[in-house]
Amino acid sequence: MVRTAGAGVAAGPTLAVVAREAGVSVPTASKVVNGREDVAPETRRRVTEALDRLGYVRRPRFDASKPPRLVDLVVHSLDDSRSGAVLRGVEEAAHEAGLDLVVSAALSRTPAGRPRRGWLDRLTVRGSAGVLFDLAELTRSQYAWLAQHRIPFVMIDPVLEPPAGVVSTGAANWQGGVTATEHLLALGHERIAVITGPSRRMCSGARVAGYRSALAAAGLAQHPEYVRDGGFDEALAHRRTHELLDLAVPPTAVFVCSDRMALGAYRALAERGLRIPHDVSVVGFDDLPESRWTTPALTTVRQPLAETAATALRLLVRMMDGERPEGTRTELSTRLVQRSSAAPPRL
Amino acid sequence: MVRTAGAGVAAGPTLAVVAREAGVSVPTASKVVNGREDVAPETRRRVTEALDRLGYVRRPRFDASKPPRLVDLVVHSLDDSRSGAVLRGVEEAAHEAGLDLVVSAALSRTPAGRPRRGWLDRLTVRGSAGVLFDLAELTRSQYAWLAQHRIPFVMIDPVLEPPAGVVSTGAANWQGGVTATEHLLALGHERIAVITGPSRRMCSGARVAGYRSALAAAGLAQHPEYVRDGGFDEALAHRRTHELLDLAVPPTAVFVCSDRMALGAYRALAERGLRIPHDVSVVGFDDLPESRWTTPALTTVRQPLAETAATALRLLVRMMDGERPEGTRTELSTRLVQRSSAAPPRL
Repeated sequence: MVRTAGAGVAAGPTLAVVAREAGVSVPTASKVVNGREDVAPETRRRVTEALDRLGYVRRPRFDASKPPRLVDLVVHSLDDSRSGAVLRGVEEAAHEAGLDLVVSAALSRTPAGRPRRGWLDRLTVRGSAGVLFDLAELTRSQYAWLAQHRIPFVMIDPVLEPPAGVVSTGAANWQGGVTATEHLLALGHERIAVITGPSRRMCSGARVAGYRSALAAAGLAQHPEYVRDGGFDEALAHRRTHELLDLAVPPTAVFVCSDRMALGAYRALAERGLRIPHDVSVVGFDDLPESRWTTPALTTVRQPLAETAATALRLLVRMMDGERPEGTRTELSTRLVQRSSAAPPRL
Repeated sequence: MVRTAGAGVAAGPTLAVVAREAGVSVPTASKVVNGREDVAPETRRRVTEALDRLGYVRRPRFDASKPPRLVDLVVHSLDDSRSGAVLRGVEEAAHEAGLDLVVSAALSRTPAGRPRRGWLDRLTVRGSAGVLFDLAELTRSQYAWLAQHRIPFVMIDPVLEPPAGVVSTGAANWQGGVTATEHLLALGHERIAVITGPSRRMCSGARVAGYRSALAAAGLAQHPEYVRDGGFDEALAHRRTHELLDLAVPPTAVFVCSDRMALGAYRALAERGLRIPHDVSVVGFDDLPESRWTTPALTTVRQPLAETAATALRLLVRMMDGERPEGTRTELSTRLVQRSSAAPPRL
């Protein structure tokens, strides 16, 4: 006997028929259907066989005419800890909102971190209720496409400043740069270098601006040779650290604008036989889970990635409901996580 | 003017009308619509405005009557590196197969790693073409539910041996246990301990069996006190390592059945002032990306998580097409990754 297994199709027998067939009570049959554990194995077997034999199809509890809505999360990569935090935040918030989450690494399949046109077309064909882009860099025509198709979207940590009116979330990067630098200043450092991400990127520019603001507030001169572009790349940060150590007056502390780059700095310092924090202090940015795997454990600025991502999903839901969130940029605060890689300078 | 933005609805003006309105050629208008970069900013602005004014809706290239099919991936967590590798593998394979991927951490919201009934109902209402479960432990009635609803599914690394006929993928855990132990034997170790995962778990039992097989093949006695259950838990592995070091005849090497537990072993050894690998050798299992962040870098058994997950998706696609994959369990081979945490025993 072949039956349609589609939900909501009232084609099958009732649970009462199944219970009679299995020789059990309706509540007992119901327990088996509902996956309850408190049923004797032999009873469960009889009911399961009856369910199969009769082709019983359970009716879903909610209105099948309103299938769960789908939202899309588009990312660069899925297997680094940053993405993991973003995914967790979005998935939890989507679950709370009763939405199902479609995940795509579409940004990884384009040179510049932009979804291909075919991917955008899929959204309309499948019916996406809204889209979150993580670390994306959309073109003007892609922004226009989204507007034309009336697809609500929110940018998580956009690479560049998005056009006016585009809703985005991110960490308070400027404040985080201030916090990291102030911590090193408070420890007594005056020769503080910074290894930055790419200057064109919003988050990187803000972190370095925070560094500069903190130095200025402390009345310290800023040395251009203490500012090095590490491109958010571990190997490049490793090279930049060596360059800093080669200076006539090397820094006593380095603010490294990502934890991953801090790992490169650690390697360079180890190669010089320099101890952290005894010889040089290091402060990172991100607080990725792997920071605690280093020796010594990394002092770093925690950015609340999961919360930033969850906030983006909640804003998206409001936009899907026709609201227009006030303010187009929502920043979540960062905080210093003190571990063991920063100490007063050696005298 | 309000227009339906639904794809495939031929309600809007043609591109020729848009081009005329913007005072450009049709190829130029097409470039803007298609997100090409080689258009002067002013031209792009004019075309974009015309697109907006006229409410142009681009027709998708593929047949809108066949929306992309959805497959589901159900996991425990989204923010650890294991899940990241699984997600990457599944997403890439889904992309190749032209499927869209719905991701849910539904297993994290139940005590025993089982999806709730409401979640299963959603699958039928939304229309899931197939489901992958990662590290799941389904009940018999959940297996029955999936069978009744004719929803194809594949288990990635099932916690327990699944019922006959259920298709699953995983790493060659037994072989991995052999490899790790043989490596330590080849270095000259004879007092080799193992810190295991929970014995009821398939993958853990297989790794320990591999350890036992390698010792037996080398003609070495097996000491029960050298086998300790670390429960795949870092803190517990830390305690177990201390217990091993307290033995009258402590081991010279420890095979730790997960990288995360190896971190616990590292901490315990450091607390005793013991050096790795000079005093005690450590071999892990998994090859998580964070393994290389430790000092010394961890020698470990690499399990091909992304490939295992991609294989599961490909098997699922075949099942969705009505095929029945031969053999219900597919195992992908592991390999030793030699770094710096294992060396010959101190004499």
